[in-house]
Amino acid sequence: MQLIGIGASIGTGISLFPQLIKVAREKKAESVSLPMLSVLFAGLVLWVIYGIMKEDWIIIISNAVSMILNACTAVLSIKYKQK
Amino acid sequence: MQLIGIGASIGTGISLFPQLIKVAREKKAESVSLPMLSVLFAGLVLWVIYGIMKEDWIIIISNAVSMILNACTAVLSIKYKQK
Repeated sequence: MQLIGIGASIGTGISLFPQLIKVAREKKAESVSLPMLSVLFAGLVLWVIYGIMKEDWIIIISNAVSMILNACTAVLSIKYKQK
Repeated sequence: MQLIGIGASIGTGISLFPQLIKVAREKKAESVSLPMLSVLFAGLVLWVIYGIMKEDWIIIISNAVSMILNACTAVLSIKYKQK
């Protein structure tokens, strides 16, 4: 069961990475939804808090990684949306 | 603690909804990353399995909702990327 949890958290944790690469490479973010990134960010912050309270390192690390990727994607998207 | 878990799962669970609405309304998905949606989908499936094994309804429902939103976003993105 632990393996499934780790697999799940890696999957959702790194899922934003391809989106970040695509925005960075193409320097376009026209159809990327900033409200999505904001709602997702809020959810990820809460998951990290939930993981800390449950002392569940799988939840903490995967959602912290996702938060960082999310923030980078948002910053780049805002930058390229302004052009 | 339960409230934080519910808040977290609602946040991440519905986060794809604004992206789905944006793609559907603008009929454009140019900068939406399909690899992101695929990796995310795989992660969400594993989270649902993890939730079933842990009998944790918060994890099951939020990730199942996200899976549905994810699938709809992917289908629409593929459709509008072909145009």
